[in-house]
Amino acid sequence: MVQLIALYRPPEDKDEFLRRYRLEHLPLAARMPGLMGMAAGPIEGVGLDLPYWFMATLDFPDRETLKASQSSPESRAARKALLAFADGLVDFAVREVEA
Amino acid sequence: MVQLIALYRPPEDKDEFLRRYRLEHLPLAARMPGLMGMAAGPIEGVGLDLPYWFMATLDFPDRETLKASQSSPESRAARKALLAFADGLVDFAVREVEA
Repeated sequence: MVQLIALYRPPEDKDEFLRRYRLEHLPLAARMPGLMGMAAGPIEGVGLDLPYWFMATLDFPDRETLKASQSSPESRAARKALLAFADGLVDFAVREVEA
Repeated sequence: MVQLIALYRPPEDKDEFLRRYRLEHLPLAARMPGLMGMAAGPIEGVGLDLPYWFMATLDFPDRETLKASQSSPESRAARKALLAFADGLVDFAVREVEA
């Protein structure tokens, strides 16, 4: 399995971020082709150094499916909706996970 | 479900880190009471800003189990083994995940 990880720095208005994430981004992200599972929510740093406050993980069966998904219309729509309120806040990473 | 997230900044010697993580830390971490599942591995940043290069997620049924686990002898041994080679590199966070 391959996981797309989105890590978000804190926005000025967290409630507004959460509202828009759930209403404007999540319904579109959920339609990304090949997506097997997804978990998103605030993370609480243990200690002082964590630059992020919210994380989403999106599960795909393999890299090829992830790559194809990311160039799909559904993915472009989800990304556009996300960047409307989270531009500059989000860093992305990918990891391999043993299913 | 509650997930303990460990995010690691890059060490000087990544091969040595991976070797010690797998041989010295992972077998101890796997014995933490209440641990339901675990995934650990390098993450590849997409873009330039990600300060981390390796992530582990440890799954527990709930916060009480995680809390009790973290004060167990198994957890203390795992943490001690980890900090012997990863002190100053790791940030921890916790998130709630819908099971």
